[in-house]
Parts: sequence; structure tokens; C-alpha cells
Amino acid sequence: MRMLLIHSDYLEFEAKDKTKIAEETDVLNGKMEECLTTFIAVERDDEENVEGIIRGAVEEIEKVAKQLKIDNIVVYPYAHLSSDLSSPEVAKNVLKGIEEELKNKNYNVLRAPFGWYKAFKISCKGHPLSELSRKISPKEEEKEKEKTPS
Amino acid sequence: MRMLLIHSDYLEFEAKDKTKIAEETDVLNGKMEECLTTFIAVERDDEENVEGIIRGAVEEIEKVAKQLKIDNIVVYPYAHLSSDLSSPEVAKNVLKGIEEELKNKNYNVLRAPFGWYKAFKISCKGHPLSELSRKISPKEEEKEKEKTPS
Ligand SMILES: [Mg+2]
Repeated sequence: MRMLLIHSDYLEFEAKDKTKIAEETDVLNGKMEECLTTFIAVERDDEENVEGIIRGAVEEIEKVAKQLKIDNIVVYPYAHLSSDLSSPEVAKNVLKGIEEELKNKNYNVLRAPFGWYKAFKISCKGHPLSELSRKISPKEEEKEKEKTPS
Repeated sequence: MRMLLIHSDYLEFEAKDKTKIAEETDVLNGKMEECLTTFIAVERDDEENVEGIIRGAVEEIEKVAKQLKIDNIVVYPYAHLSSDLSSPEVAKNVLKGIEEELKNKNYNVLRAPFGWYKAFKISCKGHPLSELSRKISPKEEEKEKEKTPS
């Protein structure tokens, strides 16, 4: 997975037209202010461990969000960050999984729909931590702790 | 070279702080409207043929600009598009070369300075051709035409 994280004054989008792989959704536009915008490309390697890549992505997002003291997160599909993409089905599952996991951790999450041509506006703050890129690998399961004999 | 081309309602930037590799410049902010914004990462491979990569980039930019019927072009350094970057010196020369070549072809060009932390605002139009990514290779010299004997 490739991810570009932008500390934003705002991110606003409007879905315009479907591509052939468009997600069915009612969320065709949205805006968030004072947010961490995460542009995400799910890659072929990620298909081997969907749960692990969701965990790895959420961990990385949370690390940056905590540094920036931010609760608002935009999850934005961005195929242009990679030339070795996963299938659309896997990408949708991963993006939805990241949304769900961040919501479980009490972040406010706006997720832009997958597979649509979208207009967007963004304002990047411009301080040294406001633009970061990451290559993220699947997070391995923690080893089950050795059970003490009962 | 990796390039992300965005057909934009506007691109606006403000240079905030220098990094160690910052270009000396008086152009610390700028705005362009109805433009093609080209986010560019110059890569290590490009070092072998600086003139060729400038030609290849300009050719690709011009192709898209003509399709969109656009005369306004923003050249914006964007290291986050690659994990195999050229030296900063080569990157600066390539970006300046692209600016110069586009100006020679009568485009209006706004180039954002290299190596600064920059705030920026962009609005992407959202039609099918408004977001394109390209891997660009150096353009080879055309074979010198065989001279006819005098
Ligand atoms: Mg518009």
C-alpha cells in the first residue's frame, strides 16, 4: 500500500461520474475541516493479507493523527500513487476496513467513494509534518501468548 | 520521472520554510487559475539524460495541455511520487528546464520552488481527463538526418 498523508485545512469532494468499477454509494459529496487526508493506493501484494494491511494502515494513520492532535480523518482512494494495484474488490474492502477500524477508535471519518471521477479541493497546511508519504506492509498477527498451564 | 497531471480550477502555493536542499528564489508564493498542474518527481534514472527527460516531460505535458485546450501550466516539485529520487541538483535543473522549454512554446508557466515546505490549495475539476499519472522516460535524440552530399 502506498499512502500520502496531508494535514489539511479542509478536504472537499464531489463524485461526478462512475467508472466501471464504481462503488454503489449514497455519499456522493462531502467536506471535512482540520483533518488528516489520507490518499491511498491498495497494491497487489496487499491481497495476500487484507486484515493485516488494514491494521498496518490504521496504525500508521493513528501515529500521525496523534502527532498532529487530529480527530478528523479523510480516507480517499488514490490509484495514481502506485503502478501495481490490487483488484478493485480488494481495494474496496481495504478502504472500508480502514474506515470501520478508525471509527471503532473514535475518529471522525469521511470516506470518498471508490471508482468515481471526483472533483476535489484541498488545502495543505505546509508545515514540515503536513505532507508525508508511506509504503505500508501488512501488519502481522501478534504471536498468541503462550498459555500458562491451568 | 513520475508525473501527476491535474486539470485545476486553480493552484495556489506559499513557501513556508526551507529544507536543506532549498532553491534560492524570490518566488515564494503564486496562484494560477484554469491550469494544468503538473506534480513532478525527478528520478535517479533521469540523471543519465537530463536533456532527454526534459524533452520527454514537455512533450507529455503539451499533449495533455492541447487535449484540454489549456495555456496555463504549473510545475510543482513532488518528491512523494517516487521512492527512487534523483539528486536535488539534477531535480532543480530538470524542473527549471521544463519551465524554460514550456515558456519557449508560449505557455504561461508558474513554477513552485524546489526544496521548500509549502502550503498549497488546489481544486481538481473531476472530469475523466482531469487526473492523469505518467511514468516518463528520457526522450531520445532524433537521428540526425543523413546529409545529402553537397
Ligand atoms: Mg469546478
